Amino acid sequence: MTATDLDAYCAAGQDRFTGELVEFLRIPSISADPAHGADVRRSAEHVLAGALEAGFTRAEIIETAGNPSVYAERMVDPSLPTALIYGHHDVQPVDPLDEWHTAPFEPAIRGGDLFARGAADDKGQVWMHLKAVEALVRARGELPLNLKLIVEGEEESGSIYFEDLVAEHLDRLRADVLVVSDTAMVGRDRPSLTTGLRGLAALEVTVSGPGADLHSGRFGGAVANPIAALAEILAGLHDPVTNRVTVPHFYDDVRELTDQERTSFAAIPLGDGEFLAMAEGAPAAVGEAGFSTLERLGARPTLEFNGIWGGYAGPGSKTIIPATAAAKITCRLVAEQDPGRIAREVARAVTDAAPPGVSVEVDTSAGGRPVVTPVDHPAVQAMARAVTRVFGTAPLFLREGGSIPPVEIFSRRLGMPAVLAGFGLPDDRIHAPNEKFSLDMYARGIRTLAHAWTEIALALARPRSTV
Amino acid sequence: MTATDLDAYCAAGQDRFTGELVEFLRIPSISADPAHGADVRRSAEHVLAGALEAGFTRAEIIETAGNPSVYAERMVDPSLPTALIYGHHDVQPVDPLDEWHTAPFEPAIRGGDLFARGAADDKGQVWMHLKAVEALVRARGELPLNLKLIVEGEEESGSIYFEDLVAEHLDRLRADVLVVSDTAMVGRDRPSLTTGLRGLAALEVTVSGPGADLHSGRFGGAVANPIAALAEILAGLHDPVTNRVTVPHFYDDVRELTDQERTSFAAIPLGDGEFLAMAEGAPAAVGEAGFSTLERLGARPTLEFNGIWGGYAGPGSKTIIPATAAAKITCRLVAEQDPGRIAREVARAVTDAAPPGVSVEVDTSAGGRPVVTPVDHPAVQAMARAVTRVFGTAPLFLREGGSIPPVEIFSRRLGMPAVLAGFGLPDDRIHAPNEKFSLDMYARGIRTLAHAWTEIALALARPRSTV
Repeated sequence: MTATDLDAYCAAGQDRFTGELVEFLRIPSISADPAHGADVRRSAEHVLAGALEAGFTRAEIIETAGNPSVYAERMVDPSLPTALIYGHHDVQPVDPLDEWHTAPFEPAIRGGDLFARGAADDKGQVWMHLKAVEALVRARGELPLNLKLIVEGEEESGSIYFEDLVAEHLDRLRADVLVVSDTAMVGRDRPSLTTGLRGLAALEVTVSGPGADLHSGRFGGAVANPIAALAEILAGLHDPVTNRVTVPHFYDDVRELTDQERTSFAAIPLGDGEFLAMAEGAPAAVGEAGFSTLERLGARPTLEFNGIWGGYAGPGSKTIIPATAAAKITCRLVAEQDPGRIAREVARAVTDAAPPGVSVEVDTSAGGRPVVTPVDHPAVQAMARAVTRVFGTAPLFLREGGSIPPVEIFSRRLGMPAVLAGFGLPDDRIHAPNEKFSLDMYARGIRTLAHAWTEIALALARPRSTV
Repeated sequence: MTATDLDAYCAAGQDRFTGELVEFLRIPSISADPAHGADVRRSAEHVLAGALEAGFTRAEIIETAGNPSVYAERMVDPSLPTALIYGHHDVQPVDPLDEWHTAPFEPAIRGGDLFARGAADDKGQVWMHLKAVEALVRARGELPLNLKLIVEGEEESGSIYFEDLVAEHLDRLRADVLVVSDTAMVGRDRPSLTTGLRGLAALEVTVSGPGADLHSGRFGGAVANPIAALAEILAGLHDPVTNRVTVPHFYDDVRELTDQERTSFAAIPLGDGEFLAMAEGAPAAVGEAGFSTLERLGARPTLEFNGIWGGYAGPGSKTIIPATAAAKITCRLVAEQDPGRIAREVARAVTDAAPPGVSVEVDTSAGGRPVVTPVDHPAVQAMARAVTRVFGTAPLFLREGGSIPPVEIFSRRLGMPAVLAGFGLPDDRIHAPNEKFSLDMYARGIRTLAHAWTEIALALARPRSTV
């Protein structure tokens, strides 16, 4: 492969691109924690300045009832196709903090990886897009299509107000294709593109017994214990033998895998051993009976417990019956499951399972629906050509286990097909301590995206109308 | 009833006695929290000064590998009986702090109750003993028997080093009877004495899956979730229908209730409605099938969950599979259960219940064995006469659901019978926010104890040997 003007520009700028990303990662833009509200705003302003610097011609902060988003555009010619880039500038919380080898907001480079909260998810991939635009504008003088950019400020806290934002700015956000870099490839030498995302439904279950903690000697054994009740409720949500979710109607709308799809999953060269090597030492691949690991992740719904708390968790012992115990639950959904319906069904199952002597309250919030883009869509194939050029091998097409609710919002509200070109790696530890982004993937991502816009512009070009 | 010299002394001094207790309660002597080590020491020094002021003639701090105890004595005549008073000057942790109406270490009087952490458990009852000694020494010039006092500094963190202390000071602590005020009466107008205490075994269970939190979209449904595994393990420890503990051999050594004992429990005038009224609004009396509430509390063993934690418990949602989840368990034991054996049996049941894909670690610590003192013991009957004099009605004899490990240590090491004369009330909220001690019970307690020493001295008097 010969170096092109774009590749040369990127190679020359790469150290600067890394330095800029380090600065961006220093901002602790944790959207789930209201204490970091000012940091999320500072992060938005940083993206806005970076977009203008990269070559976007208009940029502004869009306020929401929650944390601010950034919108930018460079409109070249109304006859050219238009693409919308989506990303997010907020990050996950950082606890447990003591498991980080270096501070989450003091980016550190070790062994070719950049360690920081948000490095891969999603600040690194947002900055990748800005640098690809910069490369095209500086090396070629202009973009081959119209580009719009929306960078959200609360993806990691559920994109609660993002649908309102989209609804209010439908015309401005409309485009021929949505491009999102917020996913991972199978491996450094096994490039892949994502063609499906799971949906999400979230619940918080609170079990209440006495109005205050009680002495376990004076009352234990004679009143219901909220932790015992919660454990019983949660344990009942999966079948202990098949690991299937027991909630009635949970699987009603799941589109079963065809033989062809199962063959396609089986063709992906990722065994359980390699999967577990990425899973932070989890001792075994465990999941729904009758499905492979990749099928469980890509094509089957799950019900997971994300947190649990109640009673005394400090040093020593405290002999109490706690007043309450609670847990956070999320369900990952596949086509054609409806997040609202699933949240209601799980809430009903939880309430129905409450043993005597406690009361149960369930808060539900429906996230996005599952999204699938056909592999043969022209924009997907255009991105695949750019990946092949930079990685030297054609990408696999995968369905991702994660959820990106905004992708579902754009799909439902604007009918936009989504090209999910993420440059993370499976061992990036997103959402966990010691998140990192490979600097090699960062560099390849910038080059791939710079080339991709030309491929996409050609693939989506409309026949010129005569004037 | 006519006022005696003792009653008159107590009545005249009561406001001062309350003021002194308020000062004692200001010391945050939380023994479970190492950060409060200096406060526990200050609390010990406060008791030492108070004992000397009250009339004890020798007093000293006894160091342990943990928090310090206080020893004091007033030896009148070797031919008189000797009693040992046991109490503790340390207190429970205070969380959840935001549920306290006034700060836990800023004592506040409302409606005749004194609110503070440790008010009833056990600082108020320790100070009651000091004031009863003061009344006897000041009003009568001398005690009717030899008195020893040991006030421990880590009862609320498991009395871990107290057995070593007793073993090292066996001769000094030897006495004809042990008197402990660390329990509650049935009600203000239903005085009672405690003749049985349950034993205790404690466990902490930690379930580990991956070495770090994992993204629930990228890994959920394909690796085991430690919260799900913990819920399954805990839920399996009780039968959901009978509420019996399912651990093999758990009930092997339980002495079954005789018909006479069941009749005696049934005679106690405390219905489930009144029980629930003390239970901070717990909605129902729930427990082991086949037993009444009072039988469950006094004569049956329990397995209770005191705390649970794992994953994300902050605001918003965090879509992770947590690396670990853990829970604290305590078992209340009845005669003839052995705490070490029960801890081992529960640990084995927990380990055996671990589902695939996680590892389980269990820390056990055995507390005291169950203790029972015969109702017709002369010292118990002597205390009953003092209670009758002050309360105007004879006490009921109860078995208490709680545990006081040091009582078991004295029983086992020195063969001392225990008189458990506590002046708390069931709604004192010990171990919970807004702990209080009734000032009326505090005053009655001081008068009862002052009279009790004369009754006990007479009851235990040995025939004088000729010289």
